Amino acid sequence: MNAFEFKNPTKIIFGEGEIKKLSDNIPANSKVLLAYGGGSIKKNGVYDQVIAATRNFEVTEFSGIEPNPHFETLMKAVELIRNKNIDFILAVGGGSVIDGCKFISAAVYYQGDEWDLVEKGLARKQEKVVPFGTVLTLPATGSEMNSGGVVTKVATQQKRTFGGPQYFPVFSILDPTVIQSLPKRQIANGVVDAFTHVMEQYLTYNHGGIIQDRMAESILQTLVEIGPAVMENPSDQNLAGNLMWSATMALNGFLRLGVPTDWSTHMIAHELTALYDIDHARTLAIIAPNLYKKLFEDKKDKLVQYGKRVWNIQGESDIEVAEKAIEKTIAFFHSLGIDTKLSDYTNNYENTGQIVYDRFKERNWMGLGERQKVGPELAKEIVEMSY
Amino acid sequence: MNAFEFKNPTKIIFGEGEIKKLSDNIPANSKVLLAYGGGSIKKNGVYDQVIAATRNFEVTEFSGIEPNPHFETLMKAVELIRNKNIDFILAVGGGSVIDGCKFISAAVYYQGDEWDLVEKGLARKQEKVVPFGTVLTLPATGSEMNSGGVVTKVATQQKRTFGGPQYFPVFSILDPTVIQSLPKRQIANGVVDAFTHVMEQYLTYNHGGIIQDRMAESILQTLVEIGPAVMENPSDQNLAGNLMWSATMALNGFLRLGVPTDWSTHMIAHELTALYDIDHARTLAIIAPNLYKKLFEDKKDKLVQYGKRVWNIQGESDIEVAEKAIEKTIAFFHSLGIDTKLSDYTNNYENTGQIVYDRFKERNWMGLGERQKVGPELAKEIVEMSY
Repeated sequence: MNAFEFKNPTKIIFGEGEIKKLSDNIPANSKVLLAYGGGSIKKNGVYDQVIAATRNFEVTEFSGIEPNPHFETLMKAVELIRNKNIDFILAVGGGSVIDGCKFISAAVYYQGDEWDLVEKGLARKQEKVVPFGTVLTLPATGSEMNSGGVVTKVATQQKRTFGGPQYFPVFSILDPTVIQSLPKRQIANGVVDAFTHVMEQYLTYNHGGIIQDRMAESILQTLVEIGPAVMENPSDQNLAGNLMWSATMALNGFLRLGVPTDWSTHMIAHELTALYDIDHARTLAIIAPNLYKKLFEDKKDKLVQYGKRVWNIQGESDIEVAEKAIEKTIAFFHSLGIDTKLSDYTNNYENTGQIVYDRFKERNWMGLGERQKVGPELAKEIVEMSY
Repeated sequence: MNAFEFKNPTKIIFGEGEIKKLSDNIPANSKVLLAYGGGSIKKNGVYDQVIAATRNFEVTEFSGIEPNPHFETLMKAVELIRNKNIDFILAVGGGSVIDGCKFISAAVYYQGDEWDLVEKGLARKQEKVVPFGTVLTLPATGSEMNSGGVVTKVATQQKRTFGGPQYFPVFSILDPTVIQSLPKRQIANGVVDAFTHVMEQYLTYNHGGIIQDRMAESILQTLVEIGPAVMENPSDQNLAGNLMWSATMALNGFLRLGVPTDWSTHMIAHELTALYDIDHARTLAIIAPNLYKKLFEDKKDKLVQYGKRVWNIQGESDIEVAEKAIEKTIAFFHSLGIDTKLSDYTNNYENTGQIVYDRFKERNWMGLGERQKVGPELAKEIVEMSY
């Protein structure tokens, strides 16, 4: 185990009907920006609950934050906050809305080209930010209990991550009943996103983090157990609650403590979304298995452990266990209705490897992953394996 | 899964040599009370590291906080803080020193009989408290990342719990190298204390908290794997680190979220420590297996799950699996050199069941545990089973 520091101050409020607690958790006398996405919250009752619980605040609405939130859209919210002296943001939505609000939080008081906050990593240095809380409507990204985000600049097709300890939500309300109104596609996406987050903090090499490995496996086992079931029975509050809490625990910081991580699946996959607008989770399902195959020797020991403990694969040679573990992973994605080839999503895939190569090169990403091996060439090969 | 709220703001600083970070984490210009126990920190190098890292602060020392810290001792520290206008407490020690400092934190600004803070539960209502940080020297209680504590009033042999969100440490430094200088007895105590904390949030009934069960099992599995090994090789930094982090995770609030808990093992066991001054962990090892046997029918489903998942007991009937799971637990305690009968610790045990009965009665504890069944009579029977 390596040295680490950890602090996660987000207050979680979990349970059916808990949106009403907004009234006690938004700081008194706040001028609130209510930020949300395409309007699904008006169909599932969440909007009405939020409005009822915030009636004692001055609320300005900002809708239209899209999946993979756009810098261009978010800057409109930034202007609105500046013009109206708003001092609290309430993000009501999934990871895209929450990530978008983290960017808004960073940008309001920044003086300069706000894209530099992500492109030059200046968000981390931004001291004055707008505090924000969230009402989660889609379990997937873990953004409701972490301090990172992703934004996309449409003009340049750039998708970028940013973060810093000032971007933890003050509070997040997790009401698992929101899952029952989600399209199955989005539930599946949430399962795969959470699953991959765990894998990226787990599937590296043996590092002696015995407790962290076990905790990662506990979330993987849970997702395997409940994933297809929650898609079948999204109104089962218990399954929904377990999915929601698993997705939060998958990326609230605990799994990565003191252990190596490999975020290269996300970094490659982000490019596919930027290029073809494929759902984020589906790009993960396209890339992850091929990344495991490409880096098989490096990740073999951990693949064996994963196969035995998560999938109960027993009795064969280590190599067979590791190979079967990858096949089980792909089959799990398929069982959720998620395709795992790029050509399932676009006909226009043939040059993608080269484009990803160029983008990695352009950003000087020469060594991602737990062994700093994933550069332009490997990324290209992994993408080409995914056609 | 039930509704829950959760917030844990403690900053964890984990790793060898990290005590030096005290200088950056104690608020600037603080007047510091350096509180510790019997002086073992002067032998293992911790004291010297603390003094070096706090040389830019005005530090007043207070030593002599005993195991199962005494109200009478702690009140001397309270007076010292009041007299010297000290505004930050640094607890250097194990759970007893940290718990003691939580009480001190509560008592300094309280006006009235300070024992009422615990006896009447007023600590939870005390708004103004003295902030504190910790340097953990003994992994066991989890007090370094939670907001509860236990104090004992010698005059009346009363051992009482207290807590409130204002009693989270501001920071806790976890340097696993401290384990190498611990007596084996204390390492064993730490393993059993952490193990029992997990069991009390796990071994109840099936409640649908799939992810919480898995997380609890992940800590139990880790403790089973590393417990005897870390006693054999306390200078193995990896084993030590896993023990230290497991003990923290066992009681930092995550396991109990949305699930029933049963703290009656601790509540009965506290009486044995108050009566006979037996190490806290050993009283848990005396009580827990008998409590599981006494409440076998109520806990059977969970005992089966525990037996299968934690101990890999397979193939027999459910009752056999559950019974073997209890036997495995006792054998695990024995493998750590921990005796599990009250008569192993005192010859004066014969009337203990009745005394515990009277104490439960006196405090009107009629229904502890996940089914509110553990009252004076059951507590008496469980204690008598432990003779």
